[in-house]
Amino acid sequence: MELNAERNDVAAIMREIGVKARKAATTLANASTKQKDAALLAAAMCVRANVDDILAANELDVADARKNGLTPAMIDRLTLDTKRVEAIAKAIEEVAALPDPVGSKITEWDRPNGLHIERVRVPLGVIGIIYESRPNVTADAGALCLKAGNAAVLRGGSEASRSNKAIHQSLVEGILASNLPEASIQLVPVTDRGAVGEMLRGLGGNLDVIVPRGGKSLVARVQEEARVPVFAHLEGICHVYVDGEADLAMARDVVVNAKLRRTGICGAAETLLVDEACASTHLAPIVQALLEGGCEVRGDEATQKVDARVKPATEEDWRTEYLDAIISVRVVKGVGEAIAHISNYGSHHTDSIVTANTRTAERFLNEVDSAIVLHNASTQFADGGEFGMGAEIGIATGKFHARGPVGVEQLTSFKYLVRGSGQTRPS
Amino acid sequence: MELNAERNDVAAIMREIGVKARKAATTLANASTKQKDAALLAAAMCVRANVDDILAANELDVADARKNGLTPAMIDRLTLDTKRVEAIAKAIEEVAALPDPVGSKITEWDRPNGLHIERVRVPLGVIGIIYESRPNVTADAGALCLKAGNAAVLRGGSEASRSNKAIHQSLVEGILASNLPEASIQLVPVTDRGAVGEMLRGLGGNLDVIVPRGGKSLVARVQEEARVPVFAHLEGICHVYVDGEADLAMARDVVVNAKLRRTGICGAAETLLVDEACASTHLAPIVQALLEGGCEVRGDEATQKVDARVKPATEEDWRTEYLDAIISVRVVKGVGEAIAHISNYGSHHTDSIVTANTRTAERFLNEVDSAIVLHNASTQFADGGEFGMGAEIGIATGKFHARGPVGVEQLTSFKYLVRGSGQTRPS
Repeated sequence: MELNAERNDVAAIMREIGVKARKAATTLANASTKQKDAALLAAAMCVRANVDDILAANELDVADARKNGLTPAMIDRLTLDTKRVEAIAKAIEEVAALPDPVGSKITEWDRPNGLHIERVRVPLGVIGIIYESRPNVTADAGALCLKAGNAAVLRGGSEASRSNKAIHQSLVEGILASNLPEASIQLVPVTDRGAVGEMLRGLGGNLDVIVPRGGKSLVARVQEEARVPVFAHLEGICHVYVDGEADLAMARDVVVNAKLRRTGICGAAETLLVDEACASTHLAPIVQALLEGGCEVRGDEATQKVDARVKPATEEDWRTEYLDAIISVRVVKGVGEAIAHISNYGSHHTDSIVTANTRTAERFLNEVDSAIVLHNASTQFADGGEFGMGAEIGIATGKFHARGPVGVEQLTSFKYLVRGSGQTRPS
Repeated sequence: MELNAERNDVAAIMREIGVKARKAATTLANASTKQKDAALLAAAMCVRANVDDILAANELDVADARKNGLTPAMIDRLTLDTKRVEAIAKAIEEVAALPDPVGSKITEWDRPNGLHIERVRVPLGVIGIIYESRPNVTADAGALCLKAGNAAVLRGGSEASRSNKAIHQSLVEGILASNLPEASIQLVPVTDRGAVGEMLRGLGGNLDVIVPRGGKSLVARVQEEARVPVFAHLEGICHVYVDGEADLAMARDVVVNAKLRRTGICGAAETLLVDEACASTHLAPIVQALLEGGCEVRGDEATQKVDARVKPATEEDWRTEYLDAIISVRVVKGVGEAIAHISNYGSHHTDSIVTANTRTAERFLNEVDSAIVLHNASTQFADGGEFGMGAEIGIATGKFHARGPVGVEQLTSFKYLVRGSGQTRPS
C-alpha cells in the first residue's frame, strides 16, 4: 500500500482505502479456507523472520512514549520483546487453526413444495478496527478478520505507529505470498488526522462494522459518532450476587477470583451484592478474604459494620468500573433486589449468581439482561477463549448481531441458498 | 395511553413513549408464552368484536383519501372491508400459533472445566415501525413484536390514522385482558409532526431497531437518518439468469412466474439475463412468453432482434425496480458476466439461476452476494411464509443481524447462560 501521506486530503485517502478494502473483500469472500490459512501461516512466519525490524521499530515507539511521559502501564502495553513477538506469531497460527466459519451451514430444511433451503455463513465485508497502544491488536484483529473472509481497515494509536507498521508489513508479506489481495488488511497511516472521523462515517459505504479496542473515551466516541454498526462494550460493570442459599466457601472463592484474578479486564467483578438472608454468616468472611487479597472494599452501611477497613460507598461507586483492586459491596433483599440493582447500575456485560437454589439461579439467569449470565462461576470466564470460541476481537454488549465474545463466527453474516427443480410460486 | 396531543413538545411526548416502551419491554421479556399468546388471541377477538368501529373509522380515512386525490392503488391499500378485517384477526391468530422464540436454545456445549454454556434467544427490546397506508400493518407488526417479547412503537401514515387507531384500540384491549402492560404496543399520535425524527434518533436510547414499511422514499430516509439499526430493503432489483445449460421449459416458467405472478412485490424479477450460449434457442421463446403475458420487454441489442415488440433498454433500466409488468433483458457471456452484472446493478435482495449444471449453479449461489439466492426456482419465493418462517415484518438486505425474511426469530437477540459448580478461572 503506497499512500501518499503528504496529501492533505484525508477524505480522499480514506475513500481510496475504502474502495480497495471493498474490492479485496469481494475476493476474500470467495477465497478458499486453504488459501486464507496459508496466508495466515505465512504471515506468522514473516512476523518471526522480521522480529529484529519489529523490535527496532518498537524501540523507537517506546523511546518516544517515555519522552512524552506515558504512564508505566501504557508503556508496558506498548513494549514488545522477543517473547511477545513470538506470542503474536503464535496467535496468528491459532487463528489459522480455527474452523473456517465461511460457507458453514447454520441450518437447513425442506419445504413441502420440494425447495431445499440452507442458511450458510458468509463474511460481513469490511471491518474497521480503531485501537490504542497494544501493537499485537494489529496482528490479532487482522488475522481474525481475514479468517472470516473480511477485509480489515486498521487504525492504531500514534504511540505505536512504527510497531504497527512493522507488524502490518509482515502480515502483508504473508497475504501476498498466498496470492490474496494486498488490501485484505490495510493499516491507515496515522499521520492522517481525521482518519477516525472518516471511518466513523463509514468510508462512503465501504465499511460495514467498526470495532473499537481501547479506553472508555475511545469506545464512547465511536459509539456516539459511528454511522455504521459497532461491536463494543463501553464498560464491564460486572456483579457477583451471593444468594442466601450460597455455599460460603464457593461464594468466597468465586468472588475473590471474579474480582482479583485480574483486575484490569472487562470481565472483572466491580460490585458484590450479598443477600441479607446470609449477610450475618457470609458477608464478613468474604469481605475479609477480599481485604486480605489486597482489595479496597467500599461498602454500604451494613458492610461497613463488618470490618473497620471497609470505606463508605457512594452512589457513584455503584456506577464505577474500577479496573483496579477496588470493589463496592451492598447488602440486598434477595434475588429480586439484586436483579433490580444490576438492571439499574450494570452495563449488560457479565453477571454471576452464587446459590445452591436452582430456581433462584434460573430466575437470575433469565431476568438479568446481560450478554453473559453465570451461575456458580467466576465472571472472569467472560472471554472467547474460555468459551471455546478461539480468539476474540472483543466483547459486545449490544444486542445486535454479536453479543458477548466476538470471535470469527460473529464476524460473519449469512445468506439463504434455495435449491429447486423448477418451482414456481402459485398465485 | 392518554397522551396530550395538544402539547407542542413532540420531543417530550416521544420521550414518554420511549420510557413507557422500555418499561413494557422489561415485563414482556419475562412474560410466559401462554400470557403472550392469550394477549394475541384476545386481541384477535377484539378486532372481530370491534369490526363496526374499525370499518367506520376506515370509511372516514378513505373519504379523506378520495378528497385528497390519493391514487386508486393507495386507496385500495387503505380500504378495509369485513373480509379484510377478518384477515387481520386471522393473521394475529397465526402469529399466536407460531413457536415462541424467546428462551429457545440456539446451541449449547460443555467446557473441559465442567462449565455448561447455552446460547438462548431473548427479545431485542423496543422495536419501532414506521409505515404507510396499509392499516393491517398495525396489527401484523404489533403482534409479531409482542410474540417475540418486544415492545412496539408504531407510527402509521396520516392517511390511515383513524383506521390504525381503531385497530390499535383492539390490540390494547387484548393486551390488557392478558395483564400485559398497555404500552406493549403503542401507536404514536400522528398529529405530532416530527415524531418520525424522534424515532430515527432512537427515543433517547429507548428504541433498539426501526423497521420501515412503505415506499422507497420512506425507506431511504430511514436508512439515511436513523441512529439505530434498521431492518429494511431499499429495493428489490431481482434477477433471473438463464444459463446456457438451462432447460427451456423450466427457464420460461421460472422467468414468467418470477416477473408476472405479482409485479408489485419486492421479490418480483426486474431483469432477465440470458447466457449467449443458449440465446439462439432460449431467448426468443422466453421473451415471447413474457410479451404474451402482458409484459413490456426492454432489451439490449441482441434481445431487440428477437421480437419487434422489444423496446431498447437504457443504462437506467438495469438499475430500475419497475414493480410493474416491465422487464429488462440482457444477453451475457456466461455465469461470470451474469454475476458481475448482478454485483453491479443488483440490490442484494433475491436472485435466481436456471441451469442443469450443478457446478455452475454452485458458483452462482456462492458468488452472488444477496440475502436469497435460488437455483431453479422463482424469485417470488422470497417471502417469510414461503420459507416456512410464518409471518414476516419485512425483508432485510443488510448483513447485520437479520438478512432475508424478518420473522419472529429475527426479532430476537440472544444471551449466554453459563452454569457451573463453583468454577474459578486459573491465573
